[in-house]
Amino acid sequence: MSHRPDPALARRLGLLSPGTPAPPWSTVQWFGHAGAPLTLQALRGRVVVLHAFQMLCPGCVHHGLPQAQRIAATFAEADVAVVGLHTVFEHHAAMTPVSLEAFLHENRIAFPVGVDAPAADGGDPIPQTMRRYALRGTPSLLLIDRRGDLRRHGFGAEDDLAVGAAIATLLAEPVDR
Amino acid sequence: MSHRPDPALARRLGLLSPGTPAPPWSTVQWFGHAGAPLTLQALRGRVVVLHAFQMLCPGCVHHGLPQAQRIAATFAEADVAVVGLHTVFEHHAAMTPVSLEAFLHENRIAFPVGVDAPAADGGDPIPQTMRRYALRGTPSLLLIDRRGDLRRHGFGAEDDLAVGAAIATLLAEPVDR
Amino acid sequence: MSHRPDPALARRLGLLSPGTPAPPWSTVQWFGHAGAPLTLQALRGRVVVLHAFQMLCPGCVHHGLPQAQRIAATFAEADVAVVGLHTVFEHHAAMTPVSLEAFLHENRIAFPVGVDAPAADGGDPIPQTMRRYALRGTPSLLLIDRRGDLRRHGFGAEDDLAVGAAIATLLAEPVDR
Amino acid sequence: MSHRPDPALARRLGLLSPGTPAPPWSTVQWFGHAGAPLTLQALRGRVVVLHAFQMLCPGCVHHGLPQAQRIAATFAEADVAVVGLHTVFEHHAAMTPVSLEAFLHENRIAFPVGVDAPAADGGDPIPQTMRRYALRGTPSLLLIDRRGDLRRHGFGAEDDLAVGAAIATLLAEPVDR
Repeated sequence: MSHRPDPALARRLGLLSPGTPAPPWSTVQWFGHAGAPLTLQALRGRVVVLHAFQMLCPGCVHHGLPQAQRIAATFAEADVAVVGLHTVFEHHAAMTPVSLEAFLHENRIAFPVGVDAPAADGGDPIPQTMRRYALRGTPSLLLIDRRGDLRRHGFGAEDDLAVGAAIATLLAEPVDR
Repeated sequence: MSHRPDPALARRLGLLSPGTPAPPWSTVQWFGHAGAPLTLQALRGRVVVLHAFQMLCPGCVHHGLPQAQRIAATFAEADVAVVGLHTVFEHHAAMTPVSLEAFLHENRIAFPVGVDAPAADGGDPIPQTMRRYALRGTPSLLLIDRRGDLRRHGFGAEDDLAVGAAIATLLAEPVDR
Repeated sequence: MSHRPDPALARRLGLLSPGTPAPPWSTVQWFGHAGAPLTLQALRGRVVVLHAFQMLCPGCVHHGLPQAQRIAATFAEADVAVVGLHTVFEHHAAMTPVSLEAFLHENRIAFPVGVDAPAADGGDPIPQTMRRYALRGTPSLLLIDRRGDLRRHGFGAEDDLAVGAAIATLLAEPVDR
Repeated sequence: MSHRPDPALARRLGLLSPGTPAPPWSTVQWFGHAGAPLTLQALRGRVVVLHAFQMLCPGCVHHGLPQAQRIAATFAEADVAVVGLHTVFEHHAAMTPVSLEAFLHENRIAFPVGVDAPAADGGDPIPQTMRRYALRGTPSLLLIDRRGDLRRHGFGAEDDLAVGAAIATLLAEPVDR
């Protein structure tokens, strides 16, 4: 008996087949998380909702971040880890970690948020993790399954019903598939 | 290995344990469905989303029915059957099938809607199916699993993320559990 | 010195020049108003906000009526009379006064609502007042000034800022212009 | 005959009596306005809508600034001058002019925005204009009449209907009262 979601349903919910490990994250700083940088590895066994945003991106402020907060409120932390990634690729001087920290405080973002590492090549505006995941922009909503595979790659405003269904579909998969 | 959803997650999503068959429906008329009355039995194998409403109930018009329409748009008909049930328990003369038909047309409700049968006892304002399901009022959102068991009993405004997750959790259960 | 609003501002707010008396209303029944039928004549001296709607028109339920309720809450009754007019021009059997009464109760419509009189010619679906005002459909928002002149003729979803400004502009005109 | 608005209406709309000149502004920089700093004096003859905000204040981002943009879209520039004032009183390092410029660009704020001058006393977090107007916080919406008098002092989320009516009431007052 198969533990993979029904292919037609998976396609409808935008779920990718398992088999492609999500790339690691490169961050320079974390908010809402103390100690060593938070890694995907440390979240193995949980479904990870990675919300890539920029604090001055209106679509992130009006849609993406409130949705990420609703996801964190809907699921138990033991099941679903909501993680923010500040992927600044424009207006770099305007969206520094100092500004981000105040932004997170004012918007009561309680989940951990990492600052994506600037490109090693100083001339590249795209930060490292953003390039590694080939994000098209912000907001992007990425779903990573319990085994660490990248399973959904969303860009722009997303529908709560479909996102809720996609997360639950991944939660229903056995870890040891 | 268990195919039942994780108990903590199920509880969080408001899912009941399987084992209680959903009662049959008693209807006097259907809109958006031709032929013999639609029965739960005929939908066996699909997750059924039963939306009980009254056409003049503001919570139904503003929240419940738009959500039911979004559910029908999100999932494939082969997976999820969205069914409306017009459970009139007040203002009976104001919410006749003639009025309901115009209401469904104007609001572009495309899923089948049954008219709950009035109580056999003429003095009882509560229609038969509504009483059988012990609904507290409208809107009510009921989820019935692929085997016909009643798994969720919602009343009032419901959150899209949780509803989407609950439906997907039921979809992930094997039919032959 | 002129007491008419600045012509450019009036145009921007959709205000017509004074000089065209609003036609009288023909109604068969009133809700939220006891005694003789409410007439425009009786409201002389106040700005009248006439909201023409149908109880099964989604644009009325989602936009028009909530806006009319906000108008009634924003202005004093001594200044602004908000009046509903049920102008049924389709689905006549579905939107009877019996259904309307329950609708008004459930939606907590507190301002007076008149039922537009059916056409004398039984074959005409358009009721009398609706035809007299040449309404294009529902919802329609009509503003009538303190002297009884028709000053604004809106159809469809209207912006609160512009409607509030138009009403206040009429309120600022002297009665004895 | 009086050109002042009806006192009961004025009170209802939150309008203050004329007679108190709005204090001058002290700014260190302007966006969306070239040349010498924009002054209240230069806007004499127009109704001025002064929107005091902080770029990281959620109430400003979700309610205040969108409303200010709607006001600017509803009225003609010749009648109503919408002006933003960035009154940073917390998280000063996070809301610098560099960050503000990107914020205004991303949110397509087209009206002029001045940066309130920091207190002369370096230890005071409240900027000069904010203190002079005794603002309680952000967002604040101030209405100044054609003669330069401060007529409305709003704080927090404001209703479009009442704000539109208040502006139109001021527009209806003669300049040479």
